[in-house]
Amino acid sequence: MASLSPLINELVQALTILPGVGPKSAQRLALYLLEKDKAGAASLVATLSEALDKVGHCQQCRNLTETEFCPVCDDAKRNDDQLCVVETPAEVLAIEQTGFKGRYFVLFGRLSPIEGIGPDALGLDKLKSWVLEKNVQEIILATNPTVEGEATAQYIQQMFAGKNVDVSRIAHGVPLGGELEYVDGGTLAHALAGRKSVY
Amino acid sequence: MASLSPLINELVQALTILPGVGPKSAQRLALYLLEKDKAGAASLVATLSEALDKVGHCQQCRNLTETEFCPVCDDAKRNDDQLCVVETPAEVLAIEQTGFKGRYFVLFGRLSPIEGIGPDALGLDKLKSWVLEKNVQEIILATNPTVEGEATAQYIQQMFAGKNVDVSRIAHGVPLGGELEYVDGGTLAHALAGRKSVY
Repeated sequence: MASLSPLINELVQALTILPGVGPKSAQRLALYLLEKDKAGAASLVATLSEALDKVGHCQQCRNLTETEFCPVCDDAKRNDDQLCVVETPAEVLAIEQTGFKGRYFVLFGRLSPIEGIGPDALGLDKLKSWVLEKNVQEIILATNPTVEGEATAQYIQQMFAGKNVDVSRIAHGVPLGGELEYVDGGTLAHALAGRKSVY
Repeated sequence: MASLSPLINELVQALTILPGVGPKSAQRLALYLLEKDKAGAASLVATLSEALDKVGHCQQCRNLTETEFCPVCDDAKRNDDQLCVVETPAEVLAIEQTGFKGRYFVLFGRLSPIEGIGPDALGLDKLKSWVLEKNVQEIILATNPTVEGEATAQYIQQMFAGKNVDVSRIAHGVPLGGELEYVDGGTLAHALAGRKSVY
């Protein structure tokens, strides 16, 4: 946009790093911030800069936090027996909404030999020592049902084979409210294979 | 979200100032910035903070710019005879796309007695001295076709009555590709009243 000044153009460019924000939305955001909400923009700058500076990983579950331990790990009321393994912090939030009261472990990725992501990058040694030292009863594998997510779940499962800890995988099947007609074949195959007796 | 740390919660809150970003998207943006694109986030902080600091108004047309004059006012090749009056910087960009080669004047609002916005707030004295000193031939009023936009256009029109300058208003009517059946009554009434002889 030749009619925007260089600095505003630079701001538009910087805003396109946001997921789901293209050049047009970025332009709208930039003009909004500079024209209508300078105070909000200033507080965004301050907060984002502080967060970038201070937020790191929880010493126990690896989730994002600016403190040594995240709020979940810090909460003495949670159930120490159950440990749910997920790929990302967003998935912790999703599972929190189900009312799950156990602990979490965040992998920040999944095993991917192609991208050079091995067990070390996912902190699996940390997971192992936590489970064995704190005497966790059940590990719930909630990695995504993708090829890599499944491989990661399998790897963790084998890691704890014969270690006196239950390992379970979340159920995959037809989502509630879904109609069989529109469910993909892979999901339907999973739903059939994972059928349960109703008596 | 009790499971997010206080600082991350604060960042989510700060991100909701963006137009079109609700709590859920803000959460997604916050986790994305902290987890996947720290470098992009840092450059966003730097650019936004510089822009907030330096971007002000063009001395001539009032548009947003960090320099004394905006790129359009600085461009000697533009047509000095035509001056297009718009409400916001975003509207300058929209009109630029039509290939318009004149100059702009940005009101940053419209007359609104209820909100206490009078001629001073819109810089109308600046507009007046520009038009009279630089001998502008035509003022094109491109304020929005709302009650307040119309009132603003009327006010500017009266301001230049008998001043040896043409004042025109952009046409309002049925948009290209629009079907009469789905066009609202007000627009259709405008389209009828503004009909032109085809011979």
